[in-house]
Amino acid sequence: MSDSAPHPRTITSPARLEAFSDGVLAIAVTLLVLEIKVPDAGQGALSQQLGALWPSYVAYAVSFLTIGIMWVNHHRMTSALRGVDHGLVYRNLALLGMVSFLPFPTAVLADYLTEGGSNAQAAAAFYGLTMVAVSVAFFFLWLHVDRTPDLAGPGATSNARSDVIGSAWAAGIYVGATGVAAFSAVAALAVYGAVAVAFAFRRVVGPQ
Amino acid sequence: MSDSAPHPRTITSPARLEAFSDGVLAIAVTLLVLEIKVPDAGQGALSQQLGALWPSYVAYAVSFLTIGIMWVNHHRMTSALRGVDHGLVYRNLALLGMVSFLPFPTAVLADYLTEGGSNAQAAAAFYGLTMVAVSVAFFFLWLHVDRTPDLAGPGATSNARSDVIGSAWAAGIYVGATGVAAFSAVAALAVYGAVAVAFAFRRVVGPQ
Amino acid sequence: MSDSAPHPRTITSPARLEAFSDGVLAIAVTLLVLEIKVPDAGQGALSQQLGALWPSYVAYAVSFLTIGIMWVNHHRMTSALRGVDHGLVYRNLALLGMVSFLPFPTAVLADYLTEGGSNAQAAAAFYGLTMVAVSVAFFFLWLHVDRTPDLAGPGATSNARSDVIGSAWAAGIYVGATGVAAFSAVAALAVYGAVAVAFAFRRVVGPQ
Amino acid sequence: MSDSAPHPRTITSPARLEAFSDGVLAIAVTLLVLEIKVPDAGQGALSQQLGALWPSYVAYAVSFLTIGIMWVNHHRMTSALRGVDHGLVYRNLALLGMVSFLPFPTAVLADYLTEGGSNAQAAAAFYGLTMVAVSVAFFFLWLHVDRTPDLAGPGATSNARSDVIGSAWAAGIYVGATGVAAFSAVAALAVYGAVAVAFAFRRVVGPQ
Repeated sequence: MSDSAPHPRTITSPARLEAFSDGVLAIAVTLLVLEIKVPDAGQGALSQQLGALWPSYVAYAVSFLTIGIMWVNHHRMTSALRGVDHGLVYRNLALLGMVSFLPFPTAVLADYLTEGGSNAQAAAAFYGLTMVAVSVAFFFLWLHVDRTPDLAGPGATSNARSDVIGSAWAAGIYVGATGVAAFSAVAALAVYGAVAVAFAFRRVVGPQ
Repeated sequence: MSDSAPHPRTITSPARLEAFSDGVLAIAVTLLVLEIKVPDAGQGALSQQLGALWPSYVAYAVSFLTIGIMWVNHHRMTSALRGVDHGLVYRNLALLGMVSFLPFPTAVLADYLTEGGSNAQAAAAFYGLTMVAVSVAFFFLWLHVDRTPDLAGPGATSNARSDVIGSAWAAGIYVGATGVAAFSAVAALAVYGAVAVAFAFRRVVGPQ
Repeated sequence: MSDSAPHPRTITSPARLEAFSDGVLAIAVTLLVLEIKVPDAGQGALSQQLGALWPSYVAYAVSFLTIGIMWVNHHRMTSALRGVDHGLVYRNLALLGMVSFLPFPTAVLADYLTEGGSNAQAAAAFYGLTMVAVSVAFFFLWLHVDRTPDLAGPGATSNARSDVIGSAWAAGIYVGATGVAAFSAVAALAVYGAVAVAFAFRRVVGPQ
Repeated sequence: MSDSAPHPRTITSPARLEAFSDGVLAIAVTLLVLEIKVPDAGQGALSQQLGALWPSYVAYAVSFLTIGIMWVNHHRMTSALRGVDHGLVYRNLALLGMVSFLPFPTAVLADYLTEGGSNAQAAAAFYGLTMVAVSVAFFFLWLHVDRTPDLAGPGATSNARSDVIGSAWAAGIYVGATGVAAFSAVAALAVYGAVAVAFAFRRVVGPQ
């Protein structure tokens, strides 16, 4: 839309965009726990039922880490912005809408993981497709920053280029992981966790 | 109340009003996902059940975009304020109360959309009436800013006038969309989505 | 505890206390909507069922306004603080704990209001007792500010005295309203709403 | 990871880390109320049912106070930071993930406390183990600050040492409390509450 505009029409400050995004991400990450339901032990042993909820704990941990890493990356970029235009606001809104959706596929995956069979695979694939959508939303957000030099100083633009590539890679990796889900839901969940950990370390050892 | 007061009795800073409003809007938008319940696949196919939830996904997307646009507009105005009086605080509170209510009609619409018949129409009309109430709350908020020049500098007042007209239009459009709901819930939902997209673009191409 | 300390040991800034309190209040007010459940229309008319939920809408409105007014009063006081000591932090925490509890009695009252009889009265009394506890928490918070002049400048201290009296009045009024609940739940709810409106206007017309 | 780095690669400001952490803690503390479900009184007395929910009220109070104290301690440390490196961000994320999980064991404990027997003990032990995990996460967070002098000025480092010891003590105390749970769930809950109160007072009377 305003990609070619020489002077972005700043409609809000980077600080406000950041505060709103931080709020949405903080809430999305905290809502994850609400999807874990107190087990009905009936006459049985609660301790066993709490143990049987391990897919919920793993899914919680993976999604918490994943959203946490997104917060780090999102913050790193937005803190370098000098202005915010409409294209950025709505691309950012699309991204937040995708991330805020994540508690739902997380709950689906946790509920069906141990059932096995086609339902577990469908749940794992649903999670993977959501992460593909998140990665694509990140891609278009960073692409917009990369193509609108007015929004960011030179350093931020260089970061944007790196993040455009990074989110394209992420989208591809999650497409592959979704393919893994067609064979094994547990293996797919392991990949989702490994990707999160890898991205966490990439930031530590990778180029800044 | 204090519309005619020459010097508004500032009771809080615009920054705090904004922070509180941002918080409420960020939470309302993030709570939307909690209304989507994990399907009980029983012996059936989870993939089909996840697909059958499309009304929830569409309703989620429409409400997320709608609240997101409200955040943009609300922020654009409050960031131009110089002071906050009691009338503004309570009109703003009424607006937040309406917007925070939106997850409920969103869930109602998602649950009854595909049932068809009078229940689907009632759900769509209920959503539309809520949006009428939101628009009316916006109208009185901007009207108060427009009629209290002490609260805003000249530029903000000119924006307020534009937003008073915009929210009156929005109220009328949502009344019409509620009428559409009497014939078809799906068509009404399409209108709600189209209105959100139109308002998003209006901000891009319209007068600032 | 540290009421008599000549120099309060400031452990956090008023700005951080305010931000945390604003966050808790914004979340508590937004969570209210989650207590309204989508009706199960079965073969019946959804429109009638949505209408039958009016106690939920009224309870939502009353609690939203009540928490909103608390935010205004809380903010007005904390924004005048010069320092924060341990006594203030924990009294504030007690207050936030009471206010965050309010969505629960709100849901109880909404669910049992139209049932009538002793259950409706119990629900209304439970709501009233919670508001008594909130008022008492406010009382001790403002009393601490009033008795610790180091925490606030002269203007804030004068406000604190006024708020100590105001919260004592509020506690007494809610005790009376809880008594009304023993006769009629609907009448008690009407009183809760009237108190909220009265406090909103008191701030407009009363001494600053 | 970067413990031995002479100059921490600051990736975000302490203020942003604090704001995100405050948001997560404020949400976690407010979500606690959602785990208390409106009782289904059937033909019985609601007042008795509301009274029978006392374990939920106690668990709510204990967890609210516990998270509140964590907020005070967390804030006291992060407000003294001069920089934030990757190791800190991810240790902080691990801590937030543990604290955000707390509403779940709180609900489990509230639901099973009065059932007695092995299920109540399992619930109390589950809560205790979560608090051990929280304490361990705090331990590694403060250890990282203590070992990375670049992140904090001298005063903060001295605080960090004190907090490393404090969180090690907390971990040990919660291990002991989890042992108590093997005998009595009610006694364990009493210990959890006493620990929270003790930590609250420790900050008042202890070394700063």
